[in-house]
Amino acid sequence: MTRIYFNDVVTRDGFQIEPNFIPTEDKVRLINGLSECGFAKIEVTSFTSPKAIPMLRDAEEVMGKIKRVAGVEYTVLVPNLRGAERALESRADEFNLVMSTSEMHNLANLRMTREKSFAGLTEVIRYVDGRTPINVSLSTSFGCPMEGEVPQEVIELFAQRFADLGVRGLTICDTTGMANPSQVAKMAESLQKKFPKLQLTFHFHNTRGMGLANVLAAAQAGIIRFDGSLGGLGGCPYAPGASGNISSEDAIHMLDAMGYDTGIDIPKLLGFARELPMIVGHAVPGQVVKAGLTYDLHPAPSFINDLR
Amino acid sequence: MTRIYFNDVVTRDGFQIEPNFIPTEDKVRLINGLSECGFAKIEVTSFTSPKAIPMLRDAEEVMGKIKRVAGVEYTVLVPNLRGAERALESRADEFNLVMSTSEMHNLANLRMTREKSFAGLTEVIRYVDGRTPINVSLSTSFGCPMEGEVPQEVIELFAQRFADLGVRGLTICDTTGMANPSQVAKMAESLQKKFPKLQLTFHFHNTRGMGLANVLAAAQAGIIRFDGSLGGLGGCPYAPGASGNISSEDAIHMLDAMGYDTGIDIPKLLGFARELPMIVGHAVPGQVVKAGLTYDLHPAPSFINDLR
Repeated sequence: MTRIYFNDVVTRDGFQIEPNFIPTEDKVRLINGLSECGFAKIEVTSFTSPKAIPMLRDAEEVMGKIKRVAGVEYTVLVPNLRGAERALESRADEFNLVMSTSEMHNLANLRMTREKSFAGLTEVIRYVDGRTPINVSLSTSFGCPMEGEVPQEVIELFAQRFADLGVRGLTICDTTGMANPSQVAKMAESLQKKFPKLQLTFHFHNTRGMGLANVLAAAQAGIIRFDGSLGGLGGCPYAPGASGNISSEDAIHMLDAMGYDTGIDIPKLLGFARELPMIVGHAVPGQVVKAGLTYDLHPAPSFINDLR
Repeated sequence: MTRIYFNDVVTRDGFQIEPNFIPTEDKVRLINGLSECGFAKIEVTSFTSPKAIPMLRDAEEVMGKIKRVAGVEYTVLVPNLRGAERALESRADEFNLVMSTSEMHNLANLRMTREKSFAGLTEVIRYVDGRTPINVSLSTSFGCPMEGEVPQEVIELFAQRFADLGVRGLTICDTTGMANPSQVAKMAESLQKKFPKLQLTFHFHNTRGMGLANVLAAAQAGIIRFDGSLGGLGGCPYAPGASGNISSEDAIHMLDAMGYDTGIDIPKLLGFARELPMIVGHAVPGQVVKAGLTYDLHPAPSFINDLR
């Protein structure tokens, strides 16, 4: 039975684009709930400037208040040196650095060239100097909404440069839901062959309905680490009405049904997913919560007894 | 390049559960549009009692008014002998018969035992006597919401009995979205081996988010015929809020991106999918219409020019 390691990103990636501030206590309670469910990793928050992302201005407080469960890694997004200092103080288990593999997306999203991002992240990695494991999320690895195709060689080039700096892992992100399963299989096979020592995580969006098909293709190719967001929260500004991140519970439900060991208490997870619309104040895309587990059976109508 | 054959079921399976009657002209216009897009097959309507399904009371009129395009098969649902007479008069290209592989679902849905359904459909097949090719849709083949698991042997038993009666094809239906990709691969491999001469179509629902993952698993196993519903229309009464049929355009968009030859003019198809909410009066689950095609590029913000 293959073990799958899931990282839930709802309180960072999911909450980040929500319009109304979510109270610190709600964040802490949700993270504590996810810890109980058996996630391998939880992306708790981001140490960006509170002015840039007011939603995550309580990063220190959240990190200080959550109950840490043994076996769960609490990772945080670190954008720069100042963020790294704060993250070190908060005793995060992993620092997640981010840049785009597409030049235009990096300029639009991080407001600097890829080379400037790479230089800044190099500084962070050198500053941390092995005190905390580093993961790098490579955005737009399966396509950029402004540039189109991003050649696989570009992703592999950045992967190599970060591997040379000693990072522990890379997350290959389909930031706007452009990946298809053939592309995912090719990417997964090549990266595993070229970087056998790196922890490789795949991060999909369900923007065009292909999210779980891409999870399937990656798992078939041997990928065992995935990002997901409770309820499928976290959208894409380029596609109003479209889904965002894959829903953690939908992906976990599928992999579990297929016989993978996800380590997750699925009924408990669905309980927290069911509370999410109350926390964010709107419906969320996750399907399993609405439909129930595959084998949650329904009663038969009583008239059938007269027909037999 | 593998050719994939798509059957759109929106005007029958999709419209059937809509609360408000959809005017005959809207149905005809939509079917004519789907014909232009290049579908291999379109499930136009059902020759059931107009009292049982008022939405499809215009079956004769629709069949008489659509423009038939060479290369497109116009199939109709035929529940019984009376339906077969009407379908013959309407010159449908194929008759689609339906029964469930689960006893409880057949009782709840068709109000008779499986054996009574099988006997009735046998009568229909003998009456038609080769004048029109017959397809049989086997509902709940991947699980029943009341019984739970339906063993693969049961599906294969009914497949054998219908093969012995000379049907041309079988549609293996995941009626309430319970299938997972491992189950689908197993089913697809076994049925193709045991029934190499039957046209096998797979019919998935996206109730638990696994619809396109199941299409992927079936296509990987060699299945080349799929049902889909424009916009993902057609729900499941057991799962309010959950998706119904897989969206034809989302599935076709994925297979096309993977390099399959779907024979479909995708931009034209998206145009018709975009009109669907106007026809039915509510939003529909299809994602690609909301997000746009993968390589519909977006303009970059102008500020990036100052950053380079």
